[in-house]
Amino acid sequence: MIGGGQGAFIGAVHRTAAAIDGEIELVCGAFSSTPEKARASGRELMLPEDRCYENYREMIRKEVYRMDKMDVVSIVTPNHMHFGPAKMALENGFHVICDKPVTFTLAEARKLKDILEQTGLTFALTHNYTGYPMVKQARHLVQSGVLGRIRKVVVEYPQGWLAFLEEKRGYKQAEWRTDPKRSGIAGAVGDIGTHAENLAEYITGLKITELCADISTFVEGRLLDDDASVLLKFDNGAKGILYCSQIANGEENALRIRVYGELGGLDWRQEEPNTLAHKSQTFHHIYRPNVGDLSPFAKANTRLPNGHPEGYLEAFANIYRNFARTVRKRMKGEEPTEIELDFPGIDDGIRGMLFVESVIASAKSKSKWVKFKKI
Amino acid sequence: MIGGGQGAFIGAVHRTAAAIDGEIELVCGAFSSTPEKARASGRELMLPEDRCYENYREMIRKEVYRMDKMDVVSIVTPNHMHFGPAKMALENGFHVICDKPVTFTLAEARKLKDILEQTGLTFALTHNYTGYPMVKQARHLVQSGVLGRIRKVVVEYPQGWLAFLEEKRGYKQAEWRTDPKRSGIAGAVGDIGTHAENLAEYITGLKITELCADISTFVEGRLLDDDASVLLKFDNGAKGILYCSQIANGEENALRIRVYGELGGLDWRQEEPNTLAHKSQTFHHIYRPNVGDLSPFAKANTRLPNGHPEGYLEAFANIYRNFARTVRKRMKGEEPTEIELDFPGIDDGIRGMLFVESVIASAKSKSKWVKFKKI
Amino acid sequence: MIGGGQGAFIGAVHRTAAAIDGEIELVCGAFSSTPEKARASGRELMLPEDRCYENYREMIRKEVYRMDKMDVVSIVTPNHMHFGPAKMALENGFHVICDKPVTFTLAEARKLKDILEQTGLTFALTHNYTGYPMVKQARHLVQSGVLGRIRKVVVEYPQGWLAFLEEKRGYKQAEWRTDPKRSGIAGAVGDIGTHAENLAEYITGLKITELCADISTFVEGRLLDDDASVLLKFDNGAKGILYCSQIANGEENALRIRVYGELGGLDWRQEEPNTLAHKSQTFHHIYRPNVGDLSPFAKANTRLPNGHPEGYLEAFANIYRNFARTVRKRMKGEEPTEIELDFPGIDDGIRGMLFVESVIASAKSKSKWVKFKKI
Amino acid sequence: MIGGGQGAFIGAVHRTAAAIDGEIELVCGAFSSTPEKARASGRELMLPEDRCYENYREMIRKEVYRMDKMDVVSIVTPNHMHFGPAKMALENGFHVICDKPVTFTLAEARKLKDILEQTGLTFALTHNYTGYPMVKQARHLVQSGVLGRIRKVVVEYPQGWLAFLEEKRGYKQAEWRTDPKRSGIAGAVGDIGTHAENLAEYITGLKITELCADISTFVEGRLLDDDASVLLKFDNGAKGILYCSQIANGEENALRIRVYGELGGLDWRQEEPNTLAHKSQTFHHIYRPNVGDLSPFAKANTRLPNGHPEGYLEAFANIYRNFARTVRKRMKGEEPTEIELDFPGIDDGIRGMLFVESVIASAKSKSKWVKFKKI
Repeated sequence: MIGGGQGAFIGAVHRTAAAIDGEIELVCGAFSSTPEKARASGRELMLPEDRCYENYREMIRKEVYRMDKMDVVSIVTPNHMHFGPAKMALENGFHVICDKPVTFTLAEARKLKDILEQTGLTFALTHNYTGYPMVKQARHLVQSGVLGRIRKVVVEYPQGWLAFLEEKRGYKQAEWRTDPKRSGIAGAVGDIGTHAENLAEYITGLKITELCADISTFVEGRLLDDDASVLLKFDNGAKGILYCSQIANGEENALRIRVYGELGGLDWRQEEPNTLAHKSQTFHHIYRPNVGDLSPFAKANTRLPNGHPEGYLEAFANIYRNFARTVRKRMKGEEPTEIELDFPGIDDGIRGMLFVESVIASAKSKSKWVKFKKI
Repeated sequence: MIGGGQGAFIGAVHRTAAAIDGEIELVCGAFSSTPEKARASGRELMLPEDRCYENYREMIRKEVYRMDKMDVVSIVTPNHMHFGPAKMALENGFHVICDKPVTFTLAEARKLKDILEQTGLTFALTHNYTGYPMVKQARHLVQSGVLGRIRKVVVEYPQGWLAFLEEKRGYKQAEWRTDPKRSGIAGAVGDIGTHAENLAEYITGLKITELCADISTFVEGRLLDDDASVLLKFDNGAKGILYCSQIANGEENALRIRVYGELGGLDWRQEEPNTLAHKSQTFHHIYRPNVGDLSPFAKANTRLPNGHPEGYLEAFANIYRNFARTVRKRMKGEEPTEIELDFPGIDDGIRGMLFVESVIASAKSKSKWVKFKKI
Repeated sequence: MIGGGQGAFIGAVHRTAAAIDGEIELVCGAFSSTPEKARASGRELMLPEDRCYENYREMIRKEVYRMDKMDVVSIVTPNHMHFGPAKMALENGFHVICDKPVTFTLAEARKLKDILEQTGLTFALTHNYTGYPMVKQARHLVQSGVLGRIRKVVVEYPQGWLAFLEEKRGYKQAEWRTDPKRSGIAGAVGDIGTHAENLAEYITGLKITELCADISTFVEGRLLDDDASVLLKFDNGAKGILYCSQIANGEENALRIRVYGELGGLDWRQEEPNTLAHKSQTFHHIYRPNVGDLSPFAKANTRLPNGHPEGYLEAFANIYRNFARTVRKRMKGEEPTEIELDFPGIDDGIRGMLFVESVIASAKSKSKWVKFKKI
Repeated sequence: MIGGGQGAFIGAVHRTAAAIDGEIELVCGAFSSTPEKARASGRELMLPEDRCYENYREMIRKEVYRMDKMDVVSIVTPNHMHFGPAKMALENGFHVICDKPVTFTLAEARKLKDILEQTGLTFALTHNYTGYPMVKQARHLVQSGVLGRIRKVVVEYPQGWLAFLEEKRGYKQAEWRTDPKRSGIAGAVGDIGTHAENLAEYITGLKITELCADISTFVEGRLLDDDASVLLKFDNGAKGILYCSQIANGEENALRIRVYGELGGLDWRQEEPNTLAHKSQTFHHIYRPNVGDLSPFAKANTRLPNGHPEGYLEAFANIYRNFARTVRKRMKGEEPTEIELDFPGIDDGIRGMLFVESVIASAKSKSKWVKFKKI
């Protein structure tokens, strides 16, 4: 693991996600850019001293020669520190699982894709919200045609935790996320807008082709956007709204998507993730894990009997497990199943970077629609 | 009552709303443009034969000379038939309560305002959703300052009942609403978008100043828009999203508003109207009618003890009752209270017409922002 | 109307319920046991002076000789004042609609049944919660057999408004309800327990045959029970729990019923009355008014399109309307339809009195089960 | 780990719960009573061959002499196989964490307590539902006095998964749970009723002193109860209802508790475990993890920022983590904190066995109340 030392949030999430299914073991790490903190973090995680590295370069250089070397590298650093480790890991033969957004710039993301194509290694991007079983059921319902042609998609991701200038109050999570040097050209748009974009494209199977964005920085002194409203056009003619905010005071982590087709609509909310509504003018049906007939993808990503709520960590773990199983199969020269291959990868990463660039371009533009490029 | 004969939906709603509090009695009507239907409707409502008129002109001409003449005229016809009756009623000294949108064109709305100023009579517009007690509580919370400066408003009004071409299937409600000759230049935008706009301005006390709209007609063969996504700017610098749709398959009548301020946020949903959430990063409070300390406006518009759900008709009745009490006071030469005066009027009507015109203008424009004129 | 003068709660509810559908007109009343208040109440309701009577005897004596005499008498007095007016009204040829519980004692209820059989007049008891359309849908689902044989019924009615000694704080509603002289042998059990019992029997079509009750008076100084927990046996072998409380602090009016059968279960909550869940181990379906295929009884008791919430007053109005239509048909010598006849009557009243007596007997008994007699 | 081999449900839950926080490592196991299955299960879990034992006796006998011996034993076998392993593990110096109910009989549970007192070792019982942060917040609110004296407790645990005779359909989970030889004298009462009892006593700090139970076996051919309704009395004079069922068709795992005090009430539902309502006649407040001011116990048992749902496995993991930290502290001769000591133990186990015995005794009795003995 690269990054995720003491005080980090997402590093611990990745470690738990990896541990939940007992298929991945943490064997080494370069947990921090300050050597002492890196070592202290490793000790806390009960790793042997000689596998607590001072930085990712040392880790990769040394691990590559060990008999019991690691198989995959997990990258959980801030955005500006994704590309370097990912590149080096891949070039040294390690599979990579990386936090989103994939890189600091679109150009880096494209380079990563090239390296992946050359090495044939496996890459996972932790757009963890697509790991929920009811999200997989939603995708299945769209694919099965029961909604008919999709007409409208409303995806929203309001949070309220940056309603004040937290980055000046010593809140580490706020600091790097609002810092253009570490986060990139976007704030909320990159941090959570990309999750919303990814979720919409994952569930509908559609691609955004044009968008019209209005972004704002409501909190005085903040350097990046903290709120964005985006009108969307999709490649099948559907329209959409994407709304993300980190100043939506009172909201916790309220990612929600509604998809309306000719024949019916879907509604899913991350804060109550085990419920999926499927409605039309003549019925109102609720899908729940392990209740009735569900898609094999939904079932494979559920661990518990019905009514035993699985949450954020389990959805995250689904990404890790599917990735791990794919890697294991490929290491054995076997072909992973569709269910094992069901995790986000480099193309999702590039779409995310394109989304960020398009939103920022549109926000600066006076004309209504800006093209959203293809990969 | 003008309009609202057999087969009409909103006429019956108006009559029930008027009856609920026992302060208004239906005494006469011109219920249909076809004389026979007008008379039959009147009989069904147990009105005397001589007060079932063939058209509104006859009604106003004859009523004006009766000793026991009506006091107020209720207009529940399709949009293109609002202005004529309203004008004639006012010019003959009758107060008017009228369905929304106020008129067929903005010009008519402005003329109505002139007539009202000249006659000094009372005019109510049934933007009924502002009649809910928890909407009044929301308005009160904004006014009281507990949310701080408002930053973002998200108001949405998805319905699904026009997901198919209902206007060609003999569905009367669909027919006139999708007919440019009776409905005006807009479909969903006029029919329900104006409710959303009115609700947002009512609760926040802010005015929309600019907007950027994308409208669609998803159902083939339909003549007016059935879906609109609108980005908003408000006069205090706040931003917003307004979304209305009649093809949001599976939605019933899902008007919802969220208001986010510096210090907290509000969330209200029409389908569960007796619950208002007030949240921030440190608390999550639920307001319910007759639970705890509520604004006098919320209390005055609640009839029942807590837990006894009041709904759409009661909210509608609140508009009627407040209007009736205002009229009664003014007829006695008394000054109505603020609570009695709390119903939508001609200015709300003009705002609605401005909204419709701005949205349609913006939808046709390639530039991002279109000004929303003042009254 | 008898009772329901100034300061009363349920009188106003009855008047609104009667007014909502425009089929019943209030023409006279004896609104209070104090003549002045009776007259003042009548004036407020805009009744002519000569039809504001000083007491029910005067009203019935005089009305019976009028050409335009009332058709039905509505009785909204406290429990101890139901029997006298009902008896006299029926004996003078007036149909009666009466608040619940039907009488002060079981003996009175039985006498009323005799009089009804002799006169052939129509009697309605306002167990208003059975007026909700989704309650009718629930009953329909049980009857249709989709639940299979019913095994378990859980009906609960917690309220919190008597968590303190409100009857000594000048709260009129609390005073008579906790006074054995006006309320009878039971407090919460009679006031709301009978609603729960009636709802359970209405929806399931089953009859309670035995019960085991524990009742409490939690608030010091109170004269009647304010909480009861009752185990039930039904005539088909099903078991049940009935729970009612007026000291369930924080609850509003949380009547809820769940019915579990061999093949599926139902869940309905009064505070969100337009949603009915129908679930099994393989599906979770939501019924809502005017969404999809509903029973004719549910449809006939719904006024508005889907998503326009109807509430307590509309459910109450359904009792009034069905009663009024039945009376009208019978006055014309016609046979009412099943839908028109769908309102609670004297048998429901007697069941309620039996329930109260059985619960009190069981509460005093040391043996577990007490028989619940048949009508 | 003892038990939990292939096909088991709760074994996998325990392993995940242990893995989530990275504080416990699975080092050996006797996963099944059939040696082959035991070994195969061990291999699947990537354990070394020599630590996959054929039975618990072998495991304990051999582990005790290893340098790297296990520290704690986790027992996840059916009920009749708890006591033997627990006794032997304790007698050989291993701490024990055990699934509930603690033993097959009350006598065994008491013996276990004696052994614990003699050895001074640590014992945890996985009444996992008390691991939820909002349950800890509920307990805190009761303790803090904001509810006043508790008057009424309603705890219910309906499930529907045994609505049919699953034990004859090859459903392993159903087989042993409905088999008196493996499950004991009770079915639903032992399996889930004890959870409900434990939750009620944990949150309220009260003890049940008397009960009146009605139990049923609704599914023909079943050998143990599948439904129970129990009236309760608590040691402070409060009353209660406990309801558990496994034939509540359509219910998933709907454990819920409501606690009503003089000053307010609480409501918590396991299926939406991150929401706790605190209500009275004057306020309605929602507690959510990491929103506002929460008890240190609630905070210590939450891993993620607000809006990131934690579920069943995380609550289970809280039991494991608190147990592990307590063991670690005690092994170092340190005193665990109150937060570390916050997990169920042998006394909870004995209370559970007393509950089962009292319910079965009451169900057979014709008198209303049966004493619930003290530990």
